Amino acid sequence: MTDFPEKSALEPDDWAAFRQRAHETLDRALDRLEQAGTGSVWSPVPKDVESQLEQALVAAPLEADACDAALASLLPYGVGNTHPRFLGWVHGSGTPFGLLPAMIEASLNANCGGRDHVGLKVERALTAWVAEQFGFPQTASGLVVTGTSMATVVALKVARDAALGFASRETGVDGSKLVAYTSAEAHACNARALDILGLGTSALRKIAVNGAFRMDLSALKSAIDRDRAAGLVPFAVIGTAGTVNTGAIDDLGGLAVIAEQEKLWFHVDGAFAASGILSDEVAPKLRGIERAHSIAFDFHKWLHVNYDAGFVLVRDEDLHRRTFSTRPEYLKAAERGLAAGNPWPVEFGPELSRGFRALKVWAHIAEFGPQRLGAAISENCQLVRTLAALVDDAPSLERLAPVETSICCFRYRADGLTESELDALNEEIVVRLQETGVAAPSTTKVNGKLAIRVNITNHRTREADLHVLLGAIDDLAPEALAQFRHT
Amino acid sequence: MTDFPEKSALEPDDWAAFRQRAHETLDRALDRLEQAGTGSVWSPVPKDVESQLEQALVAAPLEADACDAALASLLPYGVGNTHPRFLGWVHGSGTPFGLLPAMIEASLNANCGGRDHVGLKVERALTAWVAEQFGFPQTASGLVVTGTSMATVVALKVARDAALGFASRETGVDGSKLVAYTSAEAHACNARALDILGLGTSALRKIAVNGAFRMDLSALKSAIDRDRAAGLVPFAVIGTAGTVNTGAIDDLGGLAVIAEQEKLWFHVDGAFAASGILSDEVAPKLRGIERAHSIAFDFHKWLHVNYDAGFVLVRDEDLHRRTFSTRPEYLKAAERGLAAGNPWPVEFGPELSRGFRALKVWAHIAEFGPQRLGAAISENCQLVRTLAALVDDAPSLERLAPVETSICCFRYRADGLTESELDALNEEIVVRLQETGVAAPSTTKVNGKLAIRVNITNHRTREADLHVLLGAIDDLAPEALAQFRHT
Repeated sequence: MTDFPEKSALEPDDWAAFRQRAHETLDRALDRLEQAGTGSVWSPVPKDVESQLEQALVAAPLEADACDAALASLLPYGVGNTHPRFLGWVHGSGTPFGLLPAMIEASLNANCGGRDHVGLKVERALTAWVAEQFGFPQTASGLVVTGTSMATVVALKVARDAALGFASRETGVDGSKLVAYTSAEAHACNARALDILGLGTSALRKIAVNGAFRMDLSALKSAIDRDRAAGLVPFAVIGTAGTVNTGAIDDLGGLAVIAEQEKLWFHVDGAFAASGILSDEVAPKLRGIERAHSIAFDFHKWLHVNYDAGFVLVRDEDLHRRTFSTRPEYLKAAERGLAAGNPWPVEFGPELSRGFRALKVWAHIAEFGPQRLGAAISENCQLVRTLAALVDDAPSLERLAPVETSICCFRYRADGLTESELDALNEEIVVRLQETGVAAPSTTKVNGKLAIRVNITNHRTREADLHVLLGAIDDLAPEALAQFRHT
Repeated sequence: MTDFPEKSALEPDDWAAFRQRAHETLDRALDRLEQAGTGSVWSPVPKDVESQLEQALVAAPLEADACDAALASLLPYGVGNTHPRFLGWVHGSGTPFGLLPAMIEASLNANCGGRDHVGLKVERALTAWVAEQFGFPQTASGLVVTGTSMATVVALKVARDAALGFASRETGVDGSKLVAYTSAEAHACNARALDILGLGTSALRKIAVNGAFRMDLSALKSAIDRDRAAGLVPFAVIGTAGTVNTGAIDDLGGLAVIAEQEKLWFHVDGAFAASGILSDEVAPKLRGIERAHSIAFDFHKWLHVNYDAGFVLVRDEDLHRRTFSTRPEYLKAAERGLAAGNPWPVEFGPELSRGFRALKVWAHIAEFGPQRLGAAISENCQLVRTLAALVDDAPSLERLAPVETSICCFRYRADGLTESELDALNEEIVVRLQETGVAAPSTTKVNGKLAIRVNITNHRTREADLHVLLGAIDDLAPEALAQFRHT
């Protein structure tokens, strides 16, 4: 064969030099994490950094130094969630330890859609561990996915297809009349899943909540009765463990009873708070979750595994497999060789190519253990209660929701402003907090009022950070307020 | 606050010691890759390694040394796809370079579902680059996903919702009568996507292929006519760039013409061969792809980015966004601060939590450049042609399909065996190849015959590896054959 190079052009020419590059990159990655508590929570990406991103692709291949410098130039411009005063949305904060499985994962470069290898074994060991934590049978099936949004699609597809007897996989959902139920405070991923699954968002009934932001169980029962009377087919009820606005946890035991009575699939969206099963503080509030048919949750939120790592746990492995399994000739199962190792993950979810996401989760649990992970969750709960008390004591602040888990919603008050001016003022305060880089809460609406929403799913946050936050609000509010007084 | 620890228990106690751990782990990861060409392609996971996986979770937290050793113990038991003689299914082989962005990604721990940070900027730069490679307008939208299976769900949801006018997001697909078309050789992910999307696998017509395993265009037209006459609503045609059995590429230009005439969404499943757009050898065979409405493909296959990294490219950003965008209060867009940076990736796909998968792709292109990546693809094509010639010259081997891209299908022949015995013999040969660790092709059926299927999307494979493979087949065949002769 002519002109055929002796070695791959995608391998290092000089391994010693490449090793040095890799170790230098590791030190940069470590430096950033060692200094996670310093500097701004967040800074916008400078224009010159942004324009280099396209330039790098145009100029490629870059010299090794230029490529490494380009990678390093990104490090200051992340989301901010590794900083102790990132207090917005619900992000986990990751760990330095996460670097270790990331390197092993990159070296293995495994596709965990199937075949017989250690990737599948790790995922199975992890699934058994998860099942045990939630009081599920050891026969339960599970799948590591990118996050709760995907986990929800998987779980609700099992519910959909089980309700329709699996022929729907071939024939579609035409004429199915399926309806599901969740609370008005539930996350949008549930409605999105029904949209994706062809049932439409209108097939999801949003049931009113009580004063604690939990689903009103009698309203749920009425809605089911009404739908049955109208000829519709209720098939699933979705409980929330940790609502996105206020962190409330539905009465999961109560939902389990109704689901059983009404023969509905009981799914729990536990995106962040299901992890509370490891915390003495949160676990009692999750009672009833052990009776669910499926649970969707994230390892990258309150357990701080690096992004992305979600999980779907399904009580009945057979229903789960029948929902997704398809094995054409080229993916045929075998008893021996590389094509053994059945069942394959591709039989439990939509992905055929899938990285070895289970590794970082497994390693994280092995490194820290469930007690330490649970204690970090309890610490966060304690901090949020401390914050709520500080808010309650501050004359200029008004709390807008009870504290149940990781979230405290409140607002800054000023006399003489209308409700819509108060909304705009609090929005402005939050943006200024983010822009100054001092702290990064987010906003939401609670009972129609715009709230400064502080969520602490952050193992780096300490009490001092709460004082910095409240101090900064006091400092920024007069300027923000002046803006409204003078317009 | 009492009992509140001064620092997070998930941070290293001793940073210097932790740095050393990290550097040692990096060296193990590098060692494995430096020796990628040595040893067995694949070995089954020993029972003691497997049982340690569960034990590690039971015993957690492990001491640092034990945790690092547990991680290192996995390294020999991957899929095999980093070895030069991994020749099965369609796996990419990754690169040592992939370690660098993996470390930066782990340090940043970014959630790329939204918000204003460098993760979104990298993904945008990458999308513009991809659009340019495929001759799409710079206004095209794109999303990094786990793989082509997910990309297909995204693309076909855009097609579905665009056909139904987007009201279907709310109302579901009830009564839609949509049907789509693909070839009989298309990958199962297309039918799976229609199952997920509620249309059912029967809504996908499998059109016969010609002798080159390309979709028969006149059969396609007849099927469309037949469906319209029956009152159904044709909405999409799915061309394949690189069939999984033989590597064939449909006549994409011809499909584009029919799609335009029939007003169908033209989607290309280019899981592995769409990357051939960077190769002088393959690019001409892809002509017509620039007219697609959407393309799904993987970076982790023929471009060797580490798992997982797929991509969906959509010509019309507006249709794409209207298919997925939902912005509740807690995800509201803003002009300033962390909630700026619009549009957000969550508006273009099902995931809200999503890791910084774009980073490794962007860095890979920056490091290697499109020419070098394309040349590695062309080298693979050259190797497959060499293999086909060797097969054609070997009296004991019979080729079962033409070679178009990365795949050569053939079988071992022996006199006096029935077709089903030949099938079993070739299956046995492949299993023995895998079990001995010499080489790892896979199997499929071509025109009803079981084929030894060699796919070379492996930048490490050299011509000598082909001789090792064929030599091993010659060595193993008599033993495998004896099994049939004596039973």
